[in-house]
Amino acid sequence: MNERVVSGRLSIIGLGPGDETYLTQQARDALREAQDVIGYAPYVARVPVTPGQTRIESDNRVELQRAKEALERAAAGRKVAVVSGGDPGIFAMAAAVFEAIETGDPAWRELDIEVAPGISAMQAAAARVGAPLGHDFCVISLSDNLKPWDVIEKRLEHAARGDFVIALYNPASRARPQRIHDAFALLRRVLAPERLVVFAKSVGRVEEDIIVSTLDEADPNEVDMTTLVLIGSSGTRLLPRADARPWVYTSRKAP
Amino acid sequence: MNERVVSGRLSIIGLGPGDETYLTQQARDALREAQDVIGYAPYVARVPVTPGQTRIESDNRVELQRAKEALERAAAGRKVAVVSGGDPGIFAMAAAVFEAIETGDPAWRELDIEVAPGISAMQAAAARVGAPLGHDFCVISLSDNLKPWDVIEKRLEHAARGDFVIALYNPASRARPQRIHDAFALLRRVLAPERLVVFAKSVGRVEEDIIVSTLDEADPNEVDMTTLVLIGSSGTRLLPRADARPWVYTSRKAP
Repeated sequence: MNERVVSGRLSIIGLGPGDETYLTQQARDALREAQDVIGYAPYVARVPVTPGQTRIESDNRVELQRAKEALERAAAGRKVAVVSGGDPGIFAMAAAVFEAIETGDPAWRELDIEVAPGISAMQAAAARVGAPLGHDFCVISLSDNLKPWDVIEKRLEHAARGDFVIALYNPASRARPQRIHDAFALLRRVLAPERLVVFAKSVGRVEEDIIVSTLDEADPNEVDMTTLVLIGSSGTRLLPRADARPWVYTSRKAP
Repeated sequence: MNERVVSGRLSIIGLGPGDETYLTQQARDALREAQDVIGYAPYVARVPVTPGQTRIESDNRVELQRAKEALERAAAGRKVAVVSGGDPGIFAMAAAVFEAIETGDPAWRELDIEVAPGISAMQAAAARVGAPLGHDFCVISLSDNLKPWDVIEKRLEHAARGDFVIALYNPASRARPQRIHDAFALLRRVLAPERLVVFAKSVGRVEEDIIVSTLDEADPNEVDMTTLVLIGSSGTRLLPRADARPWVYTSRKAP
């Protein structure tokens, strides 16, 4: 008998941004049931402690290796939780896990796998300023670690010409601070200077900082690794308030 | 003395799709604290009961009227929760509330308003099939109630030519069953026939039904009001499994 019994379970869990505010019931239940919790150290640190659980913290750069370790543990019969900030399905761990499955042990395909979606950074940022994602939008990662910059430029161009609201993930890194400047240069060639721009830094954390401006006035030097960038469409509007940051929302009507 | 004291609060709350699985801690807390819960009847029915709460159910078509009623109650000092399925910030109630604020009583701008994001249908659908939103994507509503069809066509064209994964909301209605057929005709002119397509019906509910196919084989007649449609990019891949629906994920690498 050479048959393998795969009795473990792998949950790929989104913690949302920041603290437990955004944790879903599904994520909470899966975290409680997990025997092993694996993730980038700051995410593991945010998981409510369950006695007896093994916690495995890894570096942010080794997503594929982390995915393989999680799959191996699940294949060995463990109940494993891989944790991600935001939504694991949006520029996060879920794609890395399925990539590892595609290239790994065929038995991994038959594993019991659950993806628990989470509130992604763009949703938390949008909620803080109003409803800028209230109509058609595009979501683009500016990271050129795994795709060439000309693919990113092509997508920015189509997103702008299609008059979408645009959410930019990974807009800057220490290794490539220039990306967001290049993206803004491109967008400024295509879009009107009065387009609304939101820089949402560290959303959901104590150091949260949100800047609302326009495409011609926004300073890309303000953007760091923790920033979610939103560029409005022609239907995105500003509602000034007396003693508070203005609301920003995108009309459901075409302009 | 003519000064108005605005002591109420308006929470615009996302319930996520389906049952309480996707409810966040923030949404749960806001629902418990609300004195008045307002929403489309099936959403109000999903809110856990808190004794003493007023529940106001409305028709789905009257979003702006519902928003105004919520704002009036909050301005009168009530703690009001407007509930939405999915994420209120994504094709849902939040934009309607801010639209009502823009055109309504200036005092409404100074109200204490909180948006509690929720898991949107595309996230739940993506989680069920793997990680199709793992890379750059566009989100488009096919509803032409409030925008002309040529704007939708322009956006579909740019989304397709930009090689984005595409999530389609409101793909069909009883009044306009033709929209999804028109959208597929357009996408088939631009995209390769083997592009992966997911129809996720009633995600998170008992009648959930998910169909994975390709652009040339998918039948738009399968699409109804409860369906979230996902069209893969050139980097979206299929992982066949022995006894289950295949996994679908979008590679983090450019093809």
